[in-house]
Parts: sequence; structure tokens; C-alpha cells
Amino acid sequence: MKVIILSIGDELLSGKTVNMNANYISLVLSDIGCEIVKQVTLADKENDILDCLDDLFKIPVDLILCTGGLGPTSDDITLDVIFSFFKSKKVFDDKYWMKLMNKYSNVGIPISKSNKKQALVPDNGTTIPNPVGTARGFQFKKNKIIFIAIPGVPSEMKAMMQESVLPMVKSKTVKNKHMVIIRTTGVAESILYDLINKNIDYRDINIGFYPSIYGVDIRLIAKNLKKLNIIKEDMANVIGEYCYTLTENNLEDVVVKNLIKHQFTIATAESCTGGLVGSRITEVPGSSKVYKGTIVAYSNSVKIDNLGIDKKTLEKYGAVSKEIAGQMANRVRKLFNSKIGVSTTGIAGPGGGTKDKPVGLVYVALSSNNNLVVKKYNFHSDRNKNKIKSSQAILKIIQDYCESYA
Amino acid sequence: MKVIILSIGDELLSGKTVNMNANYISLVLSDIGCEIVKQVTLADKENDILDCLDDLFKIPVDLILCTGGLGPTSDDITLDVIFSFFKSKKVFDDKYWMKLMNKYSNVGIPISKSNKKQALVPDNGTTIPNPVGTARGFQFKKNKIIFIAIPGVPSEMKAMMQESVLPMVKSKTVKNKHMVIIRTTGVAESILYDLINKNIDYRDINIGFYPSIYGVDIRLIAKNLKKLNIIKEDMANVIGEYCYTLTENNLEDVVVKNLIKHQFTIATAESCTGGLVGSRITEVPGSSKVYKGTIVAYSNSVKIDNLGIDKKTLEKYGAVSKEIAGQMANRVRKLFNSKIGVSTTGIAGPGGGTKDKPVGLVYVALSSNNNLVVKKYNFHSDRNKNKIKSSQAILKIIQDYCESYA
Repeated sequence: MKVIILSIGDELLSGKTVNMNANYISLVLSDIGCEIVKQVTLADKENDILDCLDDLFKIPVDLILCTGGLGPTSDDITLDVIFSFFKSKKVFDDKYWMKLMNKYSNVGIPISKSNKKQALVPDNGTTIPNPVGTARGFQFKKNKIIFIAIPGVPSEMKAMMQESVLPMVKSKTVKNKHMVIIRTTGVAESILYDLINKNIDYRDINIGFYPSIYGVDIRLIAKNLKKLNIIKEDMANVIGEYCYTLTENNLEDVVVKNLIKHQFTIATAESCTGGLVGSRITEVPGSSKVYKGTIVAYSNSVKIDNLGIDKKTLEKYGAVSKEIAGQMANRVRKLFNSKIGVSTTGIAGPGGGTKDKPVGLVYVALSSNNNLVVKKYNFHSDRNKNKIKSSQAILKIIQDYCESYA
Repeated sequence: MKVIILSIGDELLSGKTVNMNANYISLVLSDIGCEIVKQVTLADKENDILDCLDDLFKIPVDLILCTGGLGPTSDDITLDVIFSFFKSKKVFDDKYWMKLMNKYSNVGIPISKSNKKQALVPDNGTTIPNPVGTARGFQFKKNKIIFIAIPGVPSEMKAMMQESVLPMVKSKTVKNKHMVIIRTTGVAESILYDLINKNIDYRDINIGFYPSIYGVDIRLIAKNLKKLNIIKEDMANVIGEYCYTLTENNLEDVVVKNLIKHQFTIATAESCTGGLVGSRITEVPGSSKVYKGTIVAYSNSVKIDNLGIDKKTLEKYGAVSKEIAGQMANRVRKLFNSKIGVSTTGIAGPGGGTKDKPVGLVYVALSSNNNLVVKKYNFHSDRNKNKIKSSQAILKIIQDYCESYA
């Protein structure tokens, strides 16, 4: 089914509210095989909505799904506008009004006259029940296109989607496309692109590259699931070490799952990340099985007095150096008696950079019983991003360490 | 200025990515006095984009602002489509290509051929510099409407909005409305609403309540700035201790600024927050002046052996108790030799809850030379939200402590 999503509400266009409704609807409809071809947001303005409906009904789709503006107050104009668009006569639904009155009196709240609007139904459309609120939805048909309007209150919208809209759409949709994901980190989108194009023939497969500060996700969409999975494996092989999962999981999920699998306990010694690595590890339920704790040694006194870093080494090489990164990882592993110790130290910025040690310079290290890995990066970013990129780099090194035991 | 926002990207329509770009652009443009009349999201499909542009240029607006699809890979088609829409000839910008090649060689990464696309410019439009990435933006004019296309990568989009688009729009827009903010935490929206309506007469002022997991922001909009500021102060007084700032700053910004002002050093001992409190403090530039470090004592062995918690107290009251919260704050203050020590301990979930100590139960504490404050909360949320709410609670207590010295 081809679908257009229409969101109505001033608060969406002023930026005061994020349009999470459109996101939810996109996700659940895509998931059952629909193609969302367009999403439009409009203010609560009659002419804007009427003009837009005229345009939308010219697009060859199967469903236009509209949310918002069905409440009882004066700024909710969607009901009047769509009745006018479909040239509906308003019929007062006495039965529903009785039901509403009972509902209110049962909870001891006086019903407002403004709720009367919610008992109006069109003579040429049907209503969609609202299991959690008072505003019902409406369904019309024009030029073979189904038009549905439901309230924008998220809990009501979701309940009506689940109970009425999705079952109806499902009955008319054949799921004929599959999607898989390849998640990578530490490599640029353009490099991945060249790597894949040089090595893989992916005809008939729709490919998308989605870069973020955490890395680049590659999404593959095709009708043939078997072929899709073969191509996915081929691409993952070509991408090699940059790929950390073929699932939707985040890097911290993958890392903690792997640590638990190998029963590797871990401790972190952090400087520039300020606790972010520990915080990301503890986002994952079950992380307490393997994560012992963190020392954030932000000041040099904590580095020396509490973490036990050698003062002379610190003075000789400075806090942001491969020597100190290595010592931090070793020390926290011993102090917390864990299998693995990891560390981060760097110049997060905006201040503190020098010519030799610019903002964005970061060392991360992993210490284990028989090995010490130290890596140097220059992330050239701002404070917040340098922190995130550093945490991503060390999580990837932990993942690589676990993989070497696979 | 009347504006249409056009977002391009398959990932937005499939629901895999929330359209935070459209939200950001709505917010910053509204803030300088623009009216956003429509927002449209389209897939990376040539004909859909061309048809839509035809429609959009019929609407009487001043600016159409388009984001997304300017990257180097083959699914990024916006450049070709808009060049085709504006009937532009492609000109290869040798100077920019040299610059790109230098940029890549400076960071030691080979440049990809696919980046060549990003050196193409139109013969009948201008380019918009990208201070943080490689894809530049473009500006055209047609039927008196300015059309701007910029990349969809959030950091690039934001930098280009701030450096180029906003200054241009500001110069053409008369701001006739002012907005102020009151930021609160630890209080429900409905309580705030009643408190304000009972005590304050705010006729002629547009008020909005924006709840999030960090607290409720109240935004006031009016033409008369003087009157607006008086009402803002009145409301802040009525709201009292729940209000932490009358600026756009986050709680961590406010806290670190205050710690620096009083020269109070701080250390954190964290359990359920896993390092999040330290991470939030170190988000703030300059925090190294006051933040000494953190011990995340996730396992009981780290609590006893490294943080120095009394084993008997731990066995008697359990790790999630007011006694242990207090000891943690005291111990980290002494260990790290800081003016203030704070702690968090709680049941983040989803596992680990009991009837007496359910998921969401959290104790936080602040220890200073002459005082120990311990507070108990039950956040009734999921793991991630319990972590954030705990960090917000302890930051608010630090802020209150600083305020008591004001």
C-alpha cells in the first residue's frame, strides 16, 4: 500500500513539539509492507489544509492518514475542514453523546459543551472508535483513495492505529520487501561506498548509507530475502573490521553481549570521556554481570593519588599520551580486579589544545592479562563529539578483543 | 518571512530516523520571527521531488529550505534533482576540489572519487559554505522565492544554518515577537499549570508547557518584552525551587557555572547512573576547573575495596539505601579531596527490583564539610530514563547547594 501521512498542528511547525507521531506511523506502516511516499505537516489553518488535500488527492496512493486537530477546543479545526472537503453533512450521534456523558459522570467530571463537537459524524463516511479518549476518527473514500483522520494525542493515536488502522491496512497489503542492516564505525561513508562498489554486484537491491557520529549504517532493501542475506554477508566481508553488527543493536549492546558470553569482566579509567564509556556500558540491561566500575580521573591529583599513575611518567609525557593511556588501563584493571581494563585520555576542547596536542587528540587503551593495545586518534571535532567518538573508539576495541576469542 | 521546510531522505519516511532536522529548523526560524507554513518529507526519488517542487513554488512563501541527499553516494540524488529543476549547468569547481583533496590528505585519509560530485556547482545559483563537512549547500531564486538546499547530516546542517542561513533570513525578517523561557525540574506539568493559573494574570501572553524527561520548560511569547520579563519573574517566584534557570542553558551548564563561581570542587560516586553524572558535568567546557573525577562503583567489590564503603553497613541495608548513598558521597569527597561529594545508587531495571525496593527506587546524596543531604526518589521508569532522572535529581541538589551560598 502507498501511503501519505498528514500531520496537523501549529506546535509541530513552530518546532515546540517533535513530530513523533509521523515517525511512529511511518515505522509501523513500513513494518507491515507499506511504502510511505510523502509526509506533510500543516498548521491549524482551514485554507492551507483544503489546498493541501486537493494536491494530495492527485498523487496515486492508496491511503492518506491524517492526525491532529480533532480535540474539543477552538483551535482544533480538522473535523470541520475535512467535513467541508468531503462535502459531508453533520449528523449528531445521540447514542455516542449519551455514552460520553456517562463516561464523564462515572469519573465525576462535568462534561463540557465543547465535547458536543465530538458526537458529530459525517453522513458519507464512517467513524473509527477511540478506545482511550473521546475524539473518534473518521474514514472516507475518494478517487479510490482511503482517507483516515485520527486524533494527534499520542496514546489515542497509537491505540487507534493498533486496533483499527493497522488491521485494515494489513488486510490490504502484501509484504514484499525485506530490509537488512550493516552497522559500521570508524570509516567514512565515501570509503565504504567505494569499497562496496568496487567489490560487490548488488543489482536489484536498494542500498542506503546513513552516517551519524557513531558510524555509518548501511541498509539494504530487496524482495528476495535469500539473495539479500547473501549480499549482506558479502558486503560485511568486504567491509571487514569496520562492521560491528548485522543487527539493529548499538555498539554497547554488542559489546556487553560479547563480554557476557566470554565472561570477561571490565573496568574503565576515563579522562576526556568523563564517565561516558561507563554510562554507555550501563545502558545495557545485564551489564552488571561484567562491568565492575569506572574511575574518572579528570584531575591529575586523582590520576596520581587514586588511580596510581606514575607521577614522573605523567610529567614527562603529559596526561594525553600513549604512556598514560596504557598506564590508566593497566591500573584500573588491577585496582578493580577485572579481566579487561580500558582507558581514554584526550583533549576534548574547546580549550587546552596546543600545536603538538590539538583539540580532538585522543588516546585509548585496552589492557588484558597478556596484552596492551593503545590507539591514537585525532577526531577534529567539538567537545561533545570528541567525547562520543572516543567512547565509540574504545567500545570498538573491546569488541575486537572479544571477537579475537570467538 | 514565510517558510516551507522540505526534508529529503528514505530513512525519514521509513521511520528509521526521527526528523529532528525539521524540528531544529522550525525552532530556530520561528525564534527569529519566521512563520513556517508547511513541512514536507519526501523519499530520495527524482520524480517525487520534482513534482513536489512544482507544487511548493505555487505557494506564496519567501523561502523554501531543503535538507538531505547531498552526500557523495548514489542514494544522494538531491544535487542532480535540483540542478535539473532549476535547469542548471554543472560546473566543476577546481579550486574547491583542490581544497577537498588537501583536507583529506591533512588527516591522512585517501579521498574517494565519489567526493568529486561535491565539487560541482550550478551556473545559475550560489554555494553555501559547509564549515564542518565536505558537501556545500546551494541557493537559487525563482518567482521571488529563495530556495536553499543544505546537507541533512545534523552537525553540518546546524553549522550552515548558524553561519549562513540564519544571518540571511534575519536580515530580511522583522521580529515582532519575543520569547522567554522558564526551565524547571522535579515537578509535573499539571502542578505547574495550576500553580501559575491560580497566582498569575498573564493576559496577552502566549504560554506553552513543554515537558521532557529532564523537566518542564515553560515558554512565554509576547510583543511587549518589558511586560514579558515582569511576568516571567512573577512566574519564577511562584514556581520557586523547581525553577533552575531563566536562560536556555541546561542544568549541567547552570551547575558547573555556579561551582566555578564559588570555587567548589566536586567528585561523584555513582552506581545506578554508571558515570552519567560525570559525563554530564564534563559536557560543559571549563568543568575541569571544579570537577575532580568519579568512581563508578557498580559492583559491590568496587564499593568496598576501592570506594571504601563499610561492608557491614552494605550487608545490613543493601547497596540501594540511604545509608550507602550517604557513605558513597562522603567517601568520594575524602578520597578525591573535593569540597563536595555526591552519589547515586538505585535499581535502574529492568531486573533487580523487589517489593521493598522496586525498579526506579533511587537514593542520591550530597556530602560537604558540614552537611550530608540524602534524598529518596521513585522514578517508576525504564532503565535509561531512571538513569537520566537520577542524574537530573543530583544535579538539582548540587545547584540548590550552590544557591544556598548565593
